[in-house]
Amino acid sequence: MNARVYVDGVAGGRVPALDRGLLYGDGLFETVLFVSGTAPLWSRHLARLQDGAQRLNLPLPPLPAIHDTAVQAAAGLARAAVRISVTRGVGERGYAPPAQAAPCWIVSAAAAPAVPADWYARGIRVRCCRLRLAAQPALAGIKHLNRLENVLARAEWTDAAIAEGLLGDRDGHVIGATAANLFAVRDGRLHTPAVDECGVAGVARAEVLARRETVIGRLTWEELMRADEIFLTSSLRGILPVAAIDENAFTPGPVARDLQAQWRAAGLMETTHG
Amino acid sequence: MNARVYVDGVAGGRVPALDRGLLYGDGLFETVLFVSGTAPLWSRHLARLQDGAQRLNLPLPPLPAIHDTAVQAAAGLARAAVRISVTRGVGERGYAPPAQAAPCWIVSAAAAPAVPADWYARGIRVRCCRLRLAAQPALAGIKHLNRLENVLARAEWTDAAIAEGLLGDRDGHVIGATAANLFAVRDGRLHTPAVDECGVAGVARAEVLARRETVIGRLTWEELMRADEIFLTSSLRGILPVAAIDENAFTPGPVARDLQAQWRAAGLMETTHG
Repeated sequence: MNARVYVDGVAGGRVPALDRGLLYGDGLFETVLFVSGTAPLWSRHLARLQDGAQRLNLPLPPLPAIHDTAVQAAAGLARAAVRISVTRGVGERGYAPPAQAAPCWIVSAAAAPAVPADWYARGIRVRCCRLRLAAQPALAGIKHLNRLENVLARAEWTDAAIAEGLLGDRDGHVIGATAANLFAVRDGRLHTPAVDECGVAGVARAEVLARRETVIGRLTWEELMRADEIFLTSSLRGILPVAAIDENAFTPGPVARDLQAQWRAAGLMETTHG
Repeated sequence: MNARVYVDGVAGGRVPALDRGLLYGDGLFETVLFVSGTAPLWSRHLARLQDGAQRLNLPLPPLPAIHDTAVQAAAGLARAAVRISVTRGVGERGYAPPAQAAPCWIVSAAAAPAVPADWYARGIRVRCCRLRLAAQPALAGIKHLNRLENVLARAEWTDAAIAEGLLGDRDGHVIGATAANLFAVRDGRLHTPAVDECGVAGVARAEVLARRETVIGRLTWEELMRADEIFLTSSLRGILPVAAIDENAFTPGPVARDLQAQWRAAGLMETTHG
């Protein structure tokens, strides 16, 4: 992996082997799109990080230092994917969090992944993952470091033509994709699954919610399959219309097109594509 | 934390910041008791590690090298807690596991935690945790690095007089403790919760199962509270009779006493205590 890495604000690619982030996944992360050195959705990433820190009772390092390091890491990259991780640092043996945790924070940057132009224009092919997300309200919504479900789901396919895998819960509801949130238009209304039992409250999802009236609730697979329009949202990849779920075809629709236009205007999606 | 650390078999305390173990908790671990340089339950730890590796499709480093490094780390310690972690190493960006993963492995050792003598003799006080374990058959039973549930549960109390916290699922069943398995004697039969939906298949639990006929199944909180005898099992701490669950008193019973005698005879519990 070709990346610049900073640990606790200092260039260098290694962390203590007994960091609780590695021992237990005891921490949080954000993957932030930087465009020409600035992050258009920075405040949303920060809000989610702070929410996660509160939920995990995790002290955060100084936020200006994180920002400055992220800017430094992204410097010179036209479009950078900057990952920020905050862990509970090194503690005593065992699960009990230290009374006074000294968080460790890691910032790395690499060129943002290139998205094929026709993914934006004609839509993406996705599949339904076999893995079902576990319901855990204590961890739902936040972007914590316990991501084995995503890893196992993403390992279900290797065909590069399949852009994403959809994930549901154990009760027959669709929740999102392995690394993106999902929206569906039904009867003229925009819907997105609630992420209070499982799933991640994506930053691009939050941006859509701020721009479009959306029903947040439960969405069954049957309801999804009858939707007029489906699209995925991702900080790094923007608005991705869904053209096929396994063998079922869909057509990119006006809501996705409108959001794509807004995303491009805000610098959140490449304008040379689509 | 005062520990000797080896990364990929070499003494040194730091790992790549972009290791998937840290990025996603993509890996496994074992916590092994070494007594005077040998691990009485080594083969059970190895079996669980191999089971976990198969379930996660994680290549394991050479097992003799892991063993030799663990022995080296434990050298000179009368009773050592040796942690062995295996991660999927550094890969490309994103959740997809690399086609050819180069696993990273970390071995660390420290003096095994001292257990107060009266915990063995008179039993321990435990509490019921508010957190409910999520049901995820794809991850249940194995000792993976996604342990935020355990961290959150263990963070529910700080009173050092409370030795453990019991954890249940969302359907009213007890599963185990934050870092131990649970057994209960009811109507003359030994029971332990199934760990096919959540929980960890402990190595000490496996050792009990090999020595005592045990019913593995669902156990409700009501059934637990009416048990004649309750005890916890842990590789590091051995057989711990339960004397109280919150305000409910229990008496250490003959099954726990017999297993404690067997554990001491096998060198698995300190003979100077209890």
